[in-house]
Amino acid sequence: MGNTKYKKIVNFITDKITRGEWSIGMKIPSQRELASLFEVNRSTVITALEELKAEGLLESKMGQGTMVTNNTWTLLGVSKPVNWNENVSLGFHKQSMKMVKDINEIETKKGHIQLGKSELSPEMFPAKQLKQIMKKVTGDLSPLSYEEPRGNYQLRQAICSYLEKKGIFTSPDSILIVSGALQALQLIAIGLLRKGSTIFLERPSYVFSLSVFQSAGMDLRGLPMDREGLLVNEISNNQEGKGNTVLYTIPTFHNPTGITLGEERRKELLHVCEKEQIPIIEDDVYGDLWIDDPPPLALKGRDRYGNVLYLGSLSKTLTPGLRIGWIVGPESVIERLSDLKMQTDYGSSSLSQRVALEWLSSGLYESHLSFVRQQLKIRRNVAVKALSQHLKGLASWSVPEGGFFIWVKIFRPLHNQHLFEKALAEGILLNPGNIYAHEANQYIRLSYSYASFEEINWGISQLGKILRSMQ
Amino acid sequence: MGNTKYKKIVNFITDKITRGEWSIGMKIPSQRELASLFEVNRSTVITALEELKAEGLLESKMGQGTMVTNNTWTLLGVSKPVNWNENVSLGFHKQSMKMVKDINEIETKKGHIQLGKSELSPEMFPAKQLKQIMKKVTGDLSPLSYEEPRGNYQLRQAICSYLEKKGIFTSPDSILIVSGALQALQLIAIGLLRKGSTIFLERPSYVFSLSVFQSAGMDLRGLPMDREGLLVNEISNNQEGKGNTVLYTIPTFHNPTGITLGEERRKELLHVCEKEQIPIIEDDVYGDLWIDDPPPLALKGRDRYGNVLYLGSLSKTLTPGLRIGWIVGPESVIERLSDLKMQTDYGSSSLSQRVALEWLSSGLYESHLSFVRQQLKIRRNVAVKALSQHLKGLASWSVPEGGFFIWVKIFRPLHNQHLFEKALAEGILLNPGNIYAHEANQYIRLSYSYASFEEINWGISQLGKILRSMQ
Repeated sequence: MGNTKYKKIVNFITDKITRGEWSIGMKIPSQRELASLFEVNRSTVITALEELKAEGLLESKMGQGTMVTNNTWTLLGVSKPVNWNENVSLGFHKQSMKMVKDINEIETKKGHIQLGKSELSPEMFPAKQLKQIMKKVTGDLSPLSYEEPRGNYQLRQAICSYLEKKGIFTSPDSILIVSGALQALQLIAIGLLRKGSTIFLERPSYVFSLSVFQSAGMDLRGLPMDREGLLVNEISNNQEGKGNTVLYTIPTFHNPTGITLGEERRKELLHVCEKEQIPIIEDDVYGDLWIDDPPPLALKGRDRYGNVLYLGSLSKTLTPGLRIGWIVGPESVIERLSDLKMQTDYGSSSLSQRVALEWLSSGLYESHLSFVRQQLKIRRNVAVKALSQHLKGLASWSVPEGGFFIWVKIFRPLHNQHLFEKALAEGILLNPGNIYAHEANQYIRLSYSYASFEEINWGISQLGKILRSMQ
Repeated sequence: MGNTKYKKIVNFITDKITRGEWSIGMKIPSQRELASLFEVNRSTVITALEELKAEGLLESKMGQGTMVTNNTWTLLGVSKPVNWNENVSLGFHKQSMKMVKDINEIETKKGHIQLGKSELSPEMFPAKQLKQIMKKVTGDLSPLSYEEPRGNYQLRQAICSYLEKKGIFTSPDSILIVSGALQALQLIAIGLLRKGSTIFLERPSYVFSLSVFQSAGMDLRGLPMDREGLLVNEISNNQEGKGNTVLYTIPTFHNPTGITLGEERRKELLHVCEKEQIPIIEDDVYGDLWIDDPPPLALKGRDRYGNVLYLGSLSKTLTPGLRIGWIVGPESVIERLSDLKMQTDYGSSSLSQRVALEWLSSGLYESHLSFVRQQLKIRRNVAVKALSQHLKGLASWSVPEGGFFIWVKIFRPLHNQHLFEKALAEGILLNPGNIYAHEANQYIRLSYSYASFEEINWGISQLGKILRSMQ
């Protein structure tokens, strides 16, 4: 039956296309090959291809054969979505975006030396303590269900006690549990801010590598920093109108520069933002990771006007795998955000929340932190020593007082994409500076939190060689 | 120091306001009361109030005293967000939205008879088996970390095997792990569809009670159903243009009607959607919960063109507390959605994913399902019997073949808000029909999955009394 045979070819090809095995733009096998594969006449193949062309899935180009041009989803506009990646006015080159995607992909694979990764090494994963926690959670296992809109009440209580020790006084009603700080930013972007709002932030900033605000139609306006952090008077200089601007800041162990805003600057910053009525988003996910001395009191701890939305998380201090973070702010804001969280995903994993609760309230959090701080100190020192040894005359850096990063300044400008690729060819994954601000192409964000001592040493020595070869 | 005293009042009031203790619109204490509270002259109070008025936080109205009008967040526009709740062209009255919010709030509290809840009763929570699973996960605990963008690979493999038994053949690359079906819809709305797209869906539908599509700027177009489900020919009748329309459907144990689309209708539906090039979102979160006989093969199982995005979840069959669901579709679509998921929350809880993996691959899922099906059968029968006893002459209903709901049709129209409130006064939480389509105000979505037998019986008998009193 010619009809059945031709259908077979149509089905085979549509399967290949719609299962994604044959991707758009790919040249499909020739008519001759298909005829032989299906043991049919070429005329049967042609009939099948004509049907697929009529459906818009294939297209023939003179001299180039037949290509996949579409599938039913792309016909709908999958390749041109509306809300995301469009209207994106990022403060850096397109190339960086591709680089960020590349990094994300390569990071999940094994075998690379991770000198860019913003995560604790598996060596610091507290398997023993977490097993203890899991046993407790398992023993007490009552039915899991949806949690309250703001998250598990006891967890929010535990976060209150934890924050109290840091000088931040709040109540469970002012806390929303989220699936990490990124989700916090996402909820704030879509739920609190107007389209066309301006986000002030440090330049460089980690947030330039994300698309969370830009995708929601907001503009990022980077403000200059000096060695002590954000230049506060730039806020008033750049202010355009009330009710349209918010400040995003990482005042402690800033990502990527590692800088901590001093006591006086913090006071100034709060004062200026209060005066100008600019709400502040304070990202404090690194704050507990001090190495030498505890950092100054968080902005939230000094906030007398409910002007600060404070973000915390277990991702950097324990593990990102739990996907647990929190937002602290005025109740009205938290209520709106929690409503939005419910509309988005009905809340974070109850299981993760119970584990987080035990972790925070058992005292294990504190003892684990002490261990992590010691480890980070050793790692930082290893990295700084290796830098002195292998990058002398090539670059400069400050020794960070906490967090994961050394912001290495290369003396001569260099092509970031080349640097990235050369390092990758040596098996080293680097985060070049232009990810965080396009003019920061003389920088590398060097992480000492993830790679082993040997990897840090070897990686930095290789980096020295690469930099020399690029001079 | 007068200055210190006046500052004290300013701080006290701003604290009250920004901590949300004094909400917007509230009348604050009189000048006299404040003067006595702070032991100052009235002139000091007036100075403080003037400053707060200048900041826009307070406002005096002749004869009405001084009111809270703002806090720094509302000045920014918290009360008028952009992306959400605006441009909302819902197919039902505003009142219903409030009702949904009320239901969500009351549901988390104890003490009500839940005749609307779409969740398995805690009595069916498999604590013993889950403890077993948790022990296994604890024993094998390797460092938790971010998962691959599409989610834990082994879990996706396990979902493939699970789907294979249901007649859906796919590969791990075609699966994205999400935090439940709502997040799936959220990602699809913001990542795949154009603003101004039309979503065809059954009318009534659960999705009318959500704002996920409308908030993203899409229009919901409800299509009529008969007793066998969606009237397929309405799709062609309503079609306006290609590339701008998608169909959302719950073909099996539809929420709220409980209807299952028959074999022939499924074929027709696929055929029409293929012809009109309308992609389908198939929500199958209830599919495993059949009571009498297994339902027909899912649309996805018949999909020859990658035209169907298929949604599944553990929320209805095991527990919503894990926040684990999945999307199955063409690789290109899954890739885009997984990129978006990473941009939104960096993936779902690793811990939940590991538990889900064990649950699906251990065989416990199947045995638990058998138990749940038995229980649902008993519960359904209890509910149907109670309906026959207490709602005879007042209403009619069909006996559902699976899922959680009986769609009860009241013979005489009635005010849904009154019904809701009267039931609530008796301690019964009901989901009236107008939540799911505004013209469905002669209906109640009665859930037999959550309340105990006694509660179902007593609740329905009370419902009968309430309905009689409202005739």
